[in-house]
Amino acid sequence: MTEVIVLNGGSSSGKSGIVRCLQAVLPDPWLALGTDTLVDAMPAFLQVSDAGIEFAPDGEVIVGPEFRTLEAAWIEGVAAMARAGARVIVDEVFLGGADSQQRWQKALRDLSVLWVGVRCESAVAAGREVARGDRTIGMAASQADVVHRGVVYDLEVDTTHAESMECARTIAAHVR
Amino acid sequence: MTEVIVLNGGSSSGKSGIVRCLQAVLPDPWLALGTDTLVDAMPAFLQVSDAGIEFAPDGEVIVGPEFRTLEAAWIEGVAAMARAGARVIVDEVFLGGADSQQRWQKALRDLSVLWVGVRCESAVAAGREVARGDRTIGMAASQADVVHRGVVYDLEVDTTHAESMECARTIAAHVR
Amino acid sequence: MTEVIVLNGGSSSGKSGIVRCLQAVLPDPWLALGTDTLVDAMPAFLQVSDAGIEFAPDGEVIVGPEFRTLEAAWIEGVAAMARAGARVIVDEVFLGGADSQQRWQKALRDLSVLWVGVRCESAVAAGREVARGDRTIGMAASQADVVHRGVVYDLEVDTTHAESMECARTIAAHVR
Amino acid sequence: MTEVIVLNGGSSSGKSGIVRCLQAVLPDPWLALGTDTLVDAMPAFLQVSDAGIEFAPDGEVIVGPEFRTLEAAWIEGVAAMARAGARVIVDEVFLGGADSQQRWQKALRDLSVLWVGVRCESAVAAGREVARGDRTIGMAASQADVVHRGVVYDLEVDTTHAESMECARTIAAHVR
Repeated sequence: MTEVIVLNGGSSSGKSGIVRCLQAVLPDPWLALGTDTLVDAMPAFLQVSDAGIEFAPDGEVIVGPEFRTLEAAWIEGVAAMARAGARVIVDEVFLGGADSQQRWQKALRDLSVLWVGVRCESAVAAGREVARGDRTIGMAASQADVVHRGVVYDLEVDTTHAESMECARTIAAHVR
Repeated sequence: MTEVIVLNGGSSSGKSGIVRCLQAVLPDPWLALGTDTLVDAMPAFLQVSDAGIEFAPDGEVIVGPEFRTLEAAWIEGVAAMARAGARVIVDEVFLGGADSQQRWQKALRDLSVLWVGVRCESAVAAGREVARGDRTIGMAASQADVVHRGVVYDLEVDTTHAESMECARTIAAHVR
Repeated sequence: MTEVIVLNGGSSSGKSGIVRCLQAVLPDPWLALGTDTLVDAMPAFLQVSDAGIEFAPDGEVIVGPEFRTLEAAWIEGVAAMARAGARVIVDEVFLGGADSQQRWQKALRDLSVLWVGVRCESAVAAGREVARGDRTIGMAASQADVVHRGVVYDLEVDTTHAESMECARTIAAHVR
Repeated sequence: MTEVIVLNGGSSSGKSGIVRCLQAVLPDPWLALGTDTLVDAMPAFLQVSDAGIEFAPDGEVIVGPEFRTLEAAWIEGVAAMARAGARVIVDEVFLGGADSQQRWQKALRDLSVLWVGVRCESAVAAGREVARGDRTIGMAASQADVVHRGVVYDLEVDTTHAESMECARTIAAHVR
């Protein structure tokens, strides 16, 4: 039985929409947690200091050591939720590519995980970033490719021409 | 010179995304106002009473007499903003079809208006409604066709297969 | 009959809470509009350019010429709504003190207006700004006094020791 | 060393504001997680079905069996985060009073916990609920007392007459 679904993709690639559709089409209730949940849980000062995260003017995200420490504990905790019986969808942005995946792989080593890549052409993601109106402009383009570097997936979906619901149904078909 | 752009389309047809893209691609600054602005400005009790608006379990929206009174004054005010020199994009849901359009036509009679229909196939809009996660399920499907009944446009866009940015560029090309 | 209530106070002085309580306790439905509505209606580029508004690192707000043009039309439009029969509560931050009030006085000259000052001790407002977690730190302190300079009121309330609901009832007692 | 701070109080008692102030005044970075985080992570269908949570018209919250299952795993996971080195502030609403506390006590048994009660007079909390404008009316009053029944605290704060920042400083003084 699939215990964790990890979705990885750049900002404005459409992950959150897919997650909500997945929660609607999967017959069991799944918890949805992710980078946004973690960032919201951080103190405000970690969001604007060198110790936390910074949004460079071009949309690049820089993550500091204190962010990393809390993130490591967060990952352990999410793995523990899955072990305690919650089925969990993790919505992630692997800024470090393969290195980021390894952090999750290590924590989830004894669990059955479905690794999903969420692709979106950079120009399309950049347009959607403008349409959303709530994200730093430039993040979509700067993350579109880099987050997939060296990452290994069971399955990839591409939101460039497919709707969130369509992608969710494709993923759901791989959940055991 | 185009003084007002009115976008009409059902819930989850993609109007707000197009509006933000339009504001980004149009060289002048345009104010964006619409149904959502008006509803947010209403007292909470008008949002759950027969005098205001109600969301039926199937997503249908019922609008009462006190809502209509405030709405009429709102429309006059938005027209006055345009007359006072602000270029305005109006993001509307013509629940009454042609009747709703006439209310706006009357208020904007002396202004140069670009009327734009925003279409989206009902099933696709319904999927996006699930993906958004912040709307009463059923609104997208119940409004997809009814809001266009008898309404006359200068231009129509369809978000079923086109991105918000693409639709915005099409509309912007018609703005004088 | 009071046609417009204008509330003026610094960021985190508690205006929005008072407005929602006013809408709840006043027997008629009143529209609530304000600086936040206007800023949300602006294009994103006006919120980060010299032509629009800027948030200085210390929380000071700098407003540019293109913002002023749209604001002037907005004020005219809000006045037109009141003339068309909507009772309107305006939630404002008079960054220019008496000059800001004069802009509104001119537009509302033929209407019956209740001018209300919303005070809050600077240190208390600064604490609430931290508690809210969604405002640039420093705005509360930098605006607490400056927005009241030279402004004339019919009535003042102070949220330092009084609840929003209490202030709303005090104001409602002055509405004819 | 205090590893977890658990804040318990009814809706609109001011917990979230205290949490943000605590994160600002405590020298180390603390993660803030709570009931709201969990509810946001749930599928939409659990928020409107007998299996999940329901908001009765009078503001009472009813929690179903599928919600309980996910909640149990969530609590285990939060405890695991603390064991993995994150200092965690938990913002909770003990709808079941002492029973709810026992669920957390069991999961946190080997950790150093500071139990904090957040009180607010029912009538004041009800007024703040109206002022917030984003909560079902009635929750504040229906939860004000019931959430504290049989619950044991190291420390209690009362937001009826004290600011969030003041309460946060009181709590911070008890953190080792």
